[in-house]
Amino acid sequence: MNRKRSTMTDSTDTARLLITCDDQPGIVAAVAGLMARVGANIISLDQHSTDAEGGKFFQRTVFHIEGFGERRPEIEQMIAELAAPFGMEWSLHDASQRKRVAIFVSQYDHCLLDLLWRVQRGDLDIDIVCVVSNHTALEQSVANFGVPFVHIPSTDKAAMEAKQLDLLAGAVDLVVLARYMQILSDDFIQKVGAPVINIHHSFLPAFIGANPYARAKERGVKLIGATAHYATADLDEGPIIEQDVTRVTHAESALELQRRGQDVERLVLARAVRWHAEDRVIVHGRSTVIL
Amino acid sequence: MNRKRSTMTDSTDTARLLITCDDQPGIVAAVAGLMARVGANIISLDQHSTDAEGGKFFQRTVFHIEGFGERRPEIEQMIAELAAPFGMEWSLHDASQRKRVAIFVSQYDHCLLDLLWRVQRGDLDIDIVCVVSNHTALEQSVANFGVPFVHIPSTDKAAMEAKQLDLLAGAVDLVVLARYMQILSDDFIQKVGAPVINIHHSFLPAFIGANPYARAKERGVKLIGATAHYATADLDEGPIIEQDVTRVTHAESALELQRRGQDVERLVLARAVRWHAEDRVIVHGRSTVIL
Amino acid sequence: MNRKRSTMTDSTDTARLLITCDDQPGIVAAVAGLMARVGANIISLDQHSTDAEGGKFFQRTVFHIEGFGERRPEIEQMIAELAAPFGMEWSLHDASQRKRVAIFVSQYDHCLLDLLWRVQRGDLDIDIVCVVSNHTALEQSVANFGVPFVHIPSTDKAAMEAKQLDLLAGAVDLVVLARYMQILSDDFIQKVGAPVINIHHSFLPAFIGANPYARAKERGVKLIGATAHYATADLDEGPIIEQDVTRVTHAESALELQRRGQDVERLVLARAVRWHAEDRVIVHGRSTVIL
Amino acid sequence: MNRKRSTMTDSTDTARLLITCDDQPGIVAAVAGLMARVGANIISLDQHSTDAEGGKFFQRTVFHIEGFGERRPEIEQMIAELAAPFGMEWSLHDASQRKRVAIFVSQYDHCLLDLLWRVQRGDLDIDIVCVVSNHTALEQSVANFGVPFVHIPSTDKAAMEAKQLDLLAGAVDLVVLARYMQILSDDFIQKVGAPVINIHHSFLPAFIGANPYARAKERGVKLIGATAHYATADLDEGPIIEQDVTRVTHAESALELQRRGQDVERLVLARAVRWHAEDRVIVHGRSTVIL
Repeated sequence: MNRKRSTMTDSTDTARLLITCDDQPGIVAAVAGLMARVGANIISLDQHSTDAEGGKFFQRTVFHIEGFGERRPEIEQMIAELAAPFGMEWSLHDASQRKRVAIFVSQYDHCLLDLLWRVQRGDLDIDIVCVVSNHTALEQSVANFGVPFVHIPSTDKAAMEAKQLDLLAGAVDLVVLARYMQILSDDFIQKVGAPVINIHHSFLPAFIGANPYARAKERGVKLIGATAHYATADLDEGPIIEQDVTRVTHAESALELQRRGQDVERLVLARAVRWHAEDRVIVHGRSTVIL
Repeated sequence: MNRKRSTMTDSTDTARLLITCDDQPGIVAAVAGLMARVGANIISLDQHSTDAEGGKFFQRTVFHIEGFGERRPEIEQMIAELAAPFGMEWSLHDASQRKRVAIFVSQYDHCLLDLLWRVQRGDLDIDIVCVVSNHTALEQSVANFGVPFVHIPSTDKAAMEAKQLDLLAGAVDLVVLARYMQILSDDFIQKVGAPVINIHHSFLPAFIGANPYARAKERGVKLIGATAHYATADLDEGPIIEQDVTRVTHAESALELQRRGQDVERLVLARAVRWHAEDRVIVHGRSTVIL
Repeated sequence: MNRKRSTMTDSTDTARLLITCDDQPGIVAAVAGLMARVGANIISLDQHSTDAEGGKFFQRTVFHIEGFGERRPEIEQMIAELAAPFGMEWSLHDASQRKRVAIFVSQYDHCLLDLLWRVQRGDLDIDIVCVVSNHTALEQSVANFGVPFVHIPSTDKAAMEAKQLDLLAGAVDLVVLARYMQILSDDFIQKVGAPVINIHHSFLPAFIGANPYARAKERGVKLIGATAHYATADLDEGPIIEQDVTRVTHAESALELQRRGQDVERLVLARAVRWHAEDRVIVHGRSTVIL
Repeated sequence: MNRKRSTMTDSTDTARLLITCDDQPGIVAAVAGLMARVGANIISLDQHSTDAEGGKFFQRTVFHIEGFGERRPEIEQMIAELAAPFGMEWSLHDASQRKRVAIFVSQYDHCLLDLLWRVQRGDLDIDIVCVVSNHTALEQSVANFGVPFVHIPSTDKAAMEAKQLDLLAGAVDLVVLARYMQILSDDFIQKVGAPVINIHHSFLPAFIGANPYARAKERGVKLIGATAHYATADLDEGPIIEQDVTRVTHAESALELQRRGQDVERLVLARAVRWHAEDRVIVHGRSTVIL
């Protein structure tokens, strides 16, 4: 029962339009008018302005239209014409096309297994096309899910990244770092051609760097957290997608803090990946808007 | 500094339009088109559909228009014409007009003082026109805030409610029950002519009735909560506006559970009143949509 | 790395003593004195009194003693002598003996997989001796973990329970109902000879019965929760071990409420099982003390 | 009703003993034996060891003994003798003696009023002996509670601190910085002769320094928090007593983040002051143990 269940209402002929521009009168009316002209039904429309005056404007519009696949070029043309005078950045996504995702891991399995399990039971609408690791420890775990596991050792970092880029070229829409313990080079991030989501094992900005649980223990923090963010060249400084915390006390050892933290990590990462998969996340400078 | 600060951007010439109707194509475009025709600038637009097909549709539109006060009749006329074919229920609110609020209390002061204090420091844009109590215990506390305190004893319930209705007739836009220990009659709720928000001292639906903290203690609950909801004839069954909880353990006494619960109560009630004051809450059957 | 890691400090020669009695002077001194006499080192000692006067007293003492296995009869004899005048109920547990656990499931896999995974990676010190189900849907998932799966159909409830009791007789220290959709008979609970932990898919006491997510949606609740409790003859009324909640809004569908709720369910159940496995939970009437 | 209620069980003849030492066998038995010898009844006993072997040991023992006031010198003598061979640090507190507290503020009133209000209604067992401010803005608010307000301008920092030290010398058991916007000198902290609790307006360690809400907004954090800690010479680096967070989204303005944060600040500070007042907090290096 739980294997075959779909979590989505039928997404055929459904599209999502994301737009960003300077706030100005008439944007909502213009988009809604376009939808009416092409005969689309708006399923949901969410927007956000950073300021009442002179701010940035963000909008996510989900709409249904018969024969979206065939009519897509025509609709894109109309959007482009509408977007130009407003100075809009925009992107159009077909809700029926699941994003192709590569997961990078090292030796921790908690975030990886959580994602694999959610996809398997039909709770997360992505296709995990491969798991890439610099270790072999998790090969069997991944095999149980019928997903390809690719071992690329980290002995030579430049060679490793070159192989990874080869593997991913044109094949993925998203890379998820599920506690991947290697630092990506700026070069990799620029060349990979897809957004990269990382899960950081602390409530950023805090305890950046190695061994945050030991340092949290030493400092006596009362809450342990995790942060999912887009990876940028400036490590751990990318736009935050989701965060959460759990309460701890002095009675927990550093190992127990880690265990509690890992439970937070996998939930936070799963939520971030889900929102990205549903085209809900728009990056705004160093922060995000979740619509 | 904290007394005079306004928490709002200037609300002059700003209005909020709430609409509810059966979901159908063209609603967003119709409203956005109307805004464009009258020269209004949409500041924010939030909507919700209960279902992709055949559901209910809810929308809150905040817009700015020069001379809203004078143009209001004209705009209302246009909205009425637009609303009719869609079968919309709608209401239009002037953001510059603070809602007039009566607070009902008995002997607990925590929720009352929290609301008085937030209004005094400019954090909550309502006008508290009077505090009504069946006791005199809190008279001095209220006097410190320069708010009228009206004592109406509960010896004769019918007489008490008649006096309350007299006092409030046409004078208030909202009644807040800030731990008011009398049960309102159906008759009162129908006649008072304004929505009534109640704070319930448990995480509804749970432990309805007297002494929830003792019962929570007896049952060993690990979380203590509170629920703010609109009062309806069916006590504690009205649409929920906001809820929250706090973690407790066996080590807390029933008195300490109460104390922890009261901290939750005042935050939950303050959030519910704020959202109502900002015309964010639309009732949908037994639930609410917060836009 | 994560497969072989032990989460415990070495538990050889370590024991846990749980006591319950009427509160009275001298209990702590008596127990601590006994520990000193036998040469045990107290690792931790936690206690709780329900009232300063006339209440119940609970204590959990963890101690280390060379050759605990051999000396156990002698120590039990001394505890029995100490306990009698105080009217103590007590139990002594060998920390090095992992509890044998049977997990009952139907078709939902989220709680089951979470427990299997925690045991596999060394994060939960129990032995899962078998998974019992009235369905076959989860057979392969369990096989991946190398744990026996026993299918006992529910066509004849009395026959099913008889087979279950046969299977478990003397073989388990704990039964975990990991979203098992059959109601246990009073007779089963009395005969099974081990405590039974159930995970309830709501924040008890609330929405007892079928389909709590749909009912939560209808009522507009703002927090979705789960409750782990000992199963008693009075369904869903057993002592609460752990609870938690997560925040939701009107925008979540009933299916999404369920999905969010399932994430809470597996964390809450895992915590409850862990605390039980560590002999931290003492039942007190309808509630629990977690030491 | 709410003004006169006492939140404590009778604390006459009740004392609290805090001890810290290297972990070693026999500590609990030694303390419990001493209690038995002097005829004291242990009300509660909580302890914590940082490690099973070679760690630090902390214990809080609450006990009742007839005529504690008169017998105190005798009991202190016995504790001193017991403590010496164990190398214990210890302190003994009379539960019936409310701590004398000075509150330092600048212009924000939320933490100050929350503490004044809790004491007034009998929910917090401290005596607020004075409020010290470098501004006059809150003079009337404090006067409403019948508490002395002392204005000491900050024009000359050395002179200001000298006056503050004069005022507090021997008169207070605790100083609370309730959003006091001046940095205390190391000299002040050394000379004040009482612990100092500060409330920091972020989830430490994070966004240390000015304007954390604007920086949190810029970075897109999803949780806003506050931290109560003991003030040390190293600003914001003192041992953490309590922390909490609240969930926020991109839709909240920086002002709304501040408002949400202030609600967290006052709850966190109130909890920290309560635990300190109940002698529950033992400092351990840069962290705390809360017993």
